[in-house]
Amino acid sequence: MRYFMTFSYDGTEYKGYQKQPNQRTIQEEIEKCLKKINNNKEVDLYASGRTDAHVHALNQKAHFNLDSIIDSTNIKKALNSMLPRDIYVKQVEQVDDEFHARFNVTGKEYIYKINMGEYDPIEKDYVYQYNKRLDVVEIERALKYIEGYHNFKAFTKASEEQSNYERNIVQATLIRNYKDVNKITISLVGTGFLRYMVRNIVGTLIEIGEGKRKSEDIITILESQDRKQAGKTASPVGLYLKDVFY
Amino acid sequence: MRYFMTFSYDGTEYKGYQKQPNQRTIQEEIEKCLKKINNNKEVDLYASGRTDAHVHALNQKAHFNLDSIIDSTNIKKALNSMLPRDIYVKQVEQVDDEFHARFNVTGKEYIYKINMGEYDPIEKDYVYQYNKRLDVVEIERALKYIEGYHNFKAFTKASEEQSNYERNIVQATLIRNYKDVNKITISLVGTGFLRYMVRNIVGTLIEIGEGKRKSEDIITILESQDRKQAGKTASPVGLYLKDVFY
Repeated sequence: MRYFMTFSYDGTEYKGYQKQPNQRTIQEEIEKCLKKINNNKEVDLYASGRTDAHVHALNQKAHFNLDSIIDSTNIKKALNSMLPRDIYVKQVEQVDDEFHARFNVTGKEYIYKINMGEYDPIEKDYVYQYNKRLDVVEIERALKYIEGYHNFKAFTKASEEQSNYERNIVQATLIRNYKDVNKITISLVGTGFLRYMVRNIVGTLIEIGEGKRKSEDIITILESQDRKQAGKTASPVGLYLKDVFY
Repeated sequence: MRYFMTFSYDGTEYKGYQKQPNQRTIQEEIEKCLKKINNNKEVDLYASGRTDAHVHALNQKAHFNLDSIIDSTNIKKALNSMLPRDIYVKQVEQVDDEFHARFNVTGKEYIYKINMGEYDPIEKDYVYQYNKRLDVVEIERALKYIEGYHNFKAFTKASEEQSNYERNIVQATLIRNYKDVNKITISLVGTGFLRYMVRNIVGTLIEIGEGKRKSEDIITILESQDRKQAGKTASPVGLYLKDVFY
């Protein structure tokens, strides 16, 4: 039987979503618990995609197969009773055997939180601290150039070999915090994302906000298809996989 | 020279504010740094009061003496460059030698955050998770009985010997979250607080919100001066020293 689940995690203490030898990962923590509810037989968890070390997820999605039919609510309860407190299963539902949590993805939303105001230790692992004021309007202009169907090779990991670097960013926005002008959130909704793409875009946006680059530079960076033309990879602190669409 | 400082901390990884042998405390972390800027001579930090293990502070206040005059801004910078990232110095100013960060306190505000909605792993160390809906209106009624000048012996640590258990709670309010009805914050402003007083009041308010007690029970609990009459001590997760007044 195939099940589909929505889960959230605080990525601070993890080396990312994907299993790796001798590293603490989200996938391994959940698979250990799934094994226990599957009569001690290994269960593979297929997520919508991986997230990097220290990146959080508000609504990550994954599917898995169990040998027997178990009530979805009971799976949710059992998992939450076994999982560490930085991973939480929000929903489990039974799905068709054809459904695939990665192949069937139609879009994702990532958000990146930045604080330009006074540092707050409570948010140390959840918001990227930038100690100067960024030009928010120039970042918004740059986001307009990010939107659309482009070759994002310049914004992916240099060593990453891919057959296709074209992705469609449906919406790229800057969300202001009405309570605190120093807090901004960048939201990117797209049909797909390359490795490090969000962090490389945000790193470039920060340099634009600093005045080191102009918003129009996004056009030439995209055209160059050269990682060296884009800005630094932004810290994983601040990045959240917000939602996955099917 | 005497200096007065405002600082914030994430109490998660600490055994509280006050120094204790073989325990990691906020006071010891700061004093270690102060020693370095005082030519390696010990500096005592006098805070407005202690906070329990895992309790956070948004604006804790303290004073200390240094052997020489150092620019306040430089003290702030030096401390923040040495302190771990879960402690942050917001302000340092020079004060009169007569000023005492504990004896001169005229009031404090504590807040306690509760989430009655779905668990969010991002907030695991910052918001108390309560999985059922509480009767918020009944809690608000109870808060009215908390306000005022009372003997709070029933709400302090049973073993705590004090010469005077009378304290004045100037304002006791429940703050709703306009974005999320499941999130509430309890705020207590008072001229002084006994050990565990906020957590014991909150624990009792939760039992009132659960319907196990009535709001008027606060009156009889206060009159009893008996710790056993009040509710359980609420978890330190959710509690913040918000402000200290002079």
